[in-house]
Amino acid sequence: MQGVIDYLEQNESRFVSELCEYLRFPSVSAQPKHRSDMQACAAWLVKHCRQIGLEARLCSTPGHPIVVAKTPRGKAKGRRRPHFVVYGHYDVQPPEPLELWKSPPFEPRIANGVLYARGASDNKGQNLAHLKAVEAYLKTGTELPCDITFVIEGEEEVGSSSLASFLRKHRAELACDAIVISDTGMPTLKHPALTYALRGIIGFEVTLRGPSRDLHSGIFGGTVDNPAMALCQLLGKLRDDNGHVTIPGFYEGVQPLSAYERKQFARLPFNTRDYQKFLGVPRLFGERGFTPLEQRSTRPTLEINGLTSGYQGEGSKTIVPAWACAKITVRLVPNQEPAQVMKRIGQHLKKLCPSTVRLETEWGHGAEPYLVSPTGPQAQAALRALKSAFGYEPVLAREGGSIPIVNDFKKILHADSLLLGLALPDCNAHSPNETFHLSCFAKGQLMAAHLWQELSKC
Amino acid sequence: MQGVIDYLEQNESRFVSELCEYLRFPSVSAQPKHRSDMQACAAWLVKHCRQIGLEARLCSTPGHPIVVAKTPRGKAKGRRRPHFVVYGHYDVQPPEPLELWKSPPFEPRIANGVLYARGASDNKGQNLAHLKAVEAYLKTGTELPCDITFVIEGEEEVGSSSLASFLRKHRAELACDAIVISDTGMPTLKHPALTYALRGIIGFEVTLRGPSRDLHSGIFGGTVDNPAMALCQLLGKLRDDNGHVTIPGFYEGVQPLSAYERKQFARLPFNTRDYQKFLGVPRLFGERGFTPLEQRSTRPTLEINGLTSGYQGEGSKTIVPAWACAKITVRLVPNQEPAQVMKRIGQHLKKLCPSTVRLETEWGHGAEPYLVSPTGPQAQAALRALKSAFGYEPVLAREGGSIPIVNDFKKILHADSLLLGLALPDCNAHSPNETFHLSCFAKGQLMAAHLWQELSKC
Repeated sequence: MQGVIDYLEQNESRFVSELCEYLRFPSVSAQPKHRSDMQACAAWLVKHCRQIGLEARLCSTPGHPIVVAKTPRGKAKGRRRPHFVVYGHYDVQPPEPLELWKSPPFEPRIANGVLYARGASDNKGQNLAHLKAVEAYLKTGTELPCDITFVIEGEEEVGSSSLASFLRKHRAELACDAIVISDTGMPTLKHPALTYALRGIIGFEVTLRGPSRDLHSGIFGGTVDNPAMALCQLLGKLRDDNGHVTIPGFYEGVQPLSAYERKQFARLPFNTRDYQKFLGVPRLFGERGFTPLEQRSTRPTLEINGLTSGYQGEGSKTIVPAWACAKITVRLVPNQEPAQVMKRIGQHLKKLCPSTVRLETEWGHGAEPYLVSPTGPQAQAALRALKSAFGYEPVLAREGGSIPIVNDFKKILHADSLLLGLALPDCNAHSPNETFHLSCFAKGQLMAAHLWQELSKC
Repeated sequence: MQGVIDYLEQNESRFVSELCEYLRFPSVSAQPKHRSDMQACAAWLVKHCRQIGLEARLCSTPGHPIVVAKTPRGKAKGRRRPHFVVYGHYDVQPPEPLELWKSPPFEPRIANGVLYARGASDNKGQNLAHLKAVEAYLKTGTELPCDITFVIEGEEEVGSSSLASFLRKHRAELACDAIVISDTGMPTLKHPALTYALRGIIGFEVTLRGPSRDLHSGIFGGTVDNPAMALCQLLGKLRDDNGHVTIPGFYEGVQPLSAYERKQFARLPFNTRDYQKFLGVPRLFGERGFTPLEQRSTRPTLEINGLTSGYQGEGSKTIVPAWACAKITVRLVPNQEPAQVMKRIGQHLKKLCPSTVRLETEWGHGAEPYLVSPTGPQAQAALRALKSAFGYEPVLAREGGSIPIVNDFKKILHADSLLLGLALPDCNAHSPNETFHLSCFAKGQLMAAHLWQELSKC
C-alpha cells in the first residue's frame, strides 16, 4: 500500500490539472445546447480511463452516453474474487444565474486550496478521486484485492432516465458486492462521513392558463382571473407557516426518528448561528419539533424551484398574463412512496384549482428515498477506510439530497450503496461558485485506496 | 368641408402606407436597447408633420423627446380664436412574448382590412388619424376654425415622467380650450364612444430575498424559507376568491355607481358568452355585484403582471431560489388617491411579510383616476362629430385603462380632455398581434375633421 500512497502524493498537482481539464467541459445535461459538450466530455473520460490502464468504453443510450471502465480482471484465490461498482456522473447542473459567479463556471479557478467550477464537487471531483486511487494501484503495479467497474453516467442531474435499463441490460457484467458512490457530503475534514440514508424526490411543473393571450390589465382587468394570482393562491395553500406540507396524506409512511438516530445527529458538529450566516438568511425556518439537521435530512419538503409568469423584462408591462408556471420538487423520506405522493399531490391540485383557470401538471423524474443499515460489515469496512484516510472518527449521517440511482442499484443489482461523500458544506452544489477543497480531493483518493483493502476483507 | 372629406377619401391608401412606415420603428420606451429607435421614430414624426404643413420641432427631455407640431396660426375674427391640443404618443409597449405574434410586431401586415403591428392602435394609428385630418385642411386650403397643437410624447407606456414638467415649462404656448385624445376604445363601429372616465394606476415590484444564493433543495431544503413560496403566500393574501382586494382601506373613496351610470352601461352592447370566448378564459371572474363592463371600468383591481423566481430554463433545477419577485399594478377609480393607496399597500406588505425573508418594494409610476362631466358643451360637440363620422348615435363610456397625463392636463393647463377612442375591442393593445381596423383609421380621420368645426362653435 505504501507505493500506492506515495504515488498519490507525488502526482497530486497533475491530478488537479486533470480535474481542471475535466471541469472545462460544460456538460449540462438539462440543456439541449450542450449536447455536443456532453459527448466531448464523455469521450474525454473514456480516453482518460484508458490512459489510467482501465478497459473503457462509451455506451450509447436514448439520452446521454454512459462511460464504463473496468480494472484488468484479477484471478480469484481460493474464493470468489470480490467485485465492486463505483458510480459517478459527468453531467452537471445548469450554471445559471451566470452573473452571480465570481469566475466563469467552466473556467476552473483555484484560490486558497479551493477549486471553483461547476461540477467541482458534484460530481466530477469526487468521482475522479476514485479513478486516481485505482490509477495509483495500476501504475505502481500494486495488486488490487478486487475487481472494480466504474459506471459514470451523464443524466444524474435530469433523473438518470437511461441508467435503469442500462443496468438491466448489463446485469451480469455489473453483478457486484456493493456500489461505492462519492456524491454526498461530510460536515468537516475532521468528520468524515458515511451516509446511510437519502431523501427521495418528485419533480413536477404546474401551469395555470387563463386568457388565450396576455391581456391589457386596464381594458380587461377585473373581469378575468389572473393566472399568476391564482397560482400564488394555489401554491400558497400547499405549505403552512410552520413549514408543514398541507397536502392530505403527504406524511403517510414517514418513519418517526429513533432515539439512536437522534443521538447520531447530536454527534454532528452544528452551530445554528454559523449555519444561518453561511446561508445568508434573516432567520432559519422549518418544521417545528425538529433540529435543522433533522429537518433537512429526515423530513419531507415541498419546494418551489422556479416561478414564471407574464412580463419579466425591465420596466413595467400592464398585463393580465395568459399563464403562470411553477417548477416544484418534493423531497421524500423513508417510507414515502413516490407514486402515491404524486397521486395525492395531483388530486389536491385539482381540488384547489379554481374553475377560472385551466390546470396543467407535468410530472418529471422521481426517486425513492433510501435507507440502509449502517451496522453491516461493508459499512464498517467503509468507516475504517474513512478513518485511515482522514485520521478522525467518522460520523454516520443522513442526507437531504437524492441520488435516484441507489434504489435502482438495490432493485436491479441487489447491492447496497456505500455513500462516502467528500464535499464540505460550503461546496455550493447546484449554486453559483461551486467549490471542491483540494484537501478533500487528496484525502478522497487516499480513502478510495484504503477502501478496496477494507472491503475485500468482508 | 367637402374638399377636406374628398381629400381624406382620395388619399386613403397613401395614409395607410404612411402609418405602416410609422409602425416599423420599434419605439419601445421601456427597453434601453431601443433608445436609438425612439430617436429615429421621433425624428420621422417631426419630418412627417413638416411635410403636412405643420410647424414641428423635437423637444428634448430627461427621457425620450417630445414632438410638438402646430398648425399655422390663424387670425381671430371678433372673438378669441379657439386653441386645442391633440395629445398622442409614439412609444409602444414591449412586444414580448415574440413567439405568440403571427407576424413580426414591427413588420406591419394587412389582412381583411385589419392592420397588425405593435402600436397599431396604441397609439400610432389613432394619433395619425388626427394628423391626417389636419393635413386635409392644410393641403386643400380649407380654413381651420381653430389653432391646433399636437403634443406627441415618447414615454406614455413608462409613466409619462417628462411630460408634466414639459407642460409646466410650455404652459403659455399650450394654454388651450381642451385636449383631444384618441387613445381609448369603442365597443363596435356602430357605437362610437366618448369616454368620460378612466381608471388610475399604481405600479410596483415586490421582491422577497431569502438565502444569499440559490441553495441545493436537498442539502438545505427544510431549514430555510422558500422565497418563492413566501411570495406566493404573501401575494395570495392580497385578493380573495371573489376578486375583492383585501388590503385594509383599499376601497376608501371609491364612488358608488349612480343609477344614471348603470343605465349608460346597460346601453352598451355586451354579450357575456362572446366576451368569454374572445378572451379565451374558461370562466369570467370578478367582483360580485357588478357586471363585467362595470367591473373592468369602475372597480379598482390588483393584478400580478409578472412573476420571476429561480430556474426558468428547460428541465429541472433542484434549488431553493435566493429570491422571488412580482411586478404588480393596481387600477384605481375615482376618488382613490394613489399616494394613499401606495401607503396602505406598503404597510400591508410589511405586515404580511414573514421574518424569514427580506421584503423590498420598489414603487413605479402612478396616475390618478379621471372623471369629467359628459354633459358639457365640448362633450356634446365631440358627440356630434362622432355621429357625423360614424353615422350612429355615440355612447358614453368609462374605460378601465389609464392615461396618466389627463390629470396633468387638468392640473397644469386647466383643460378637460376629450377622449375619442378609435380602437375596437379586438385591438390586442399590450398583447401580441395588436390590431387597428383600417375602417377605424378612415372614420377617425373624418371624425377629427368634423371635430374642429363642432368644437369651435362652443
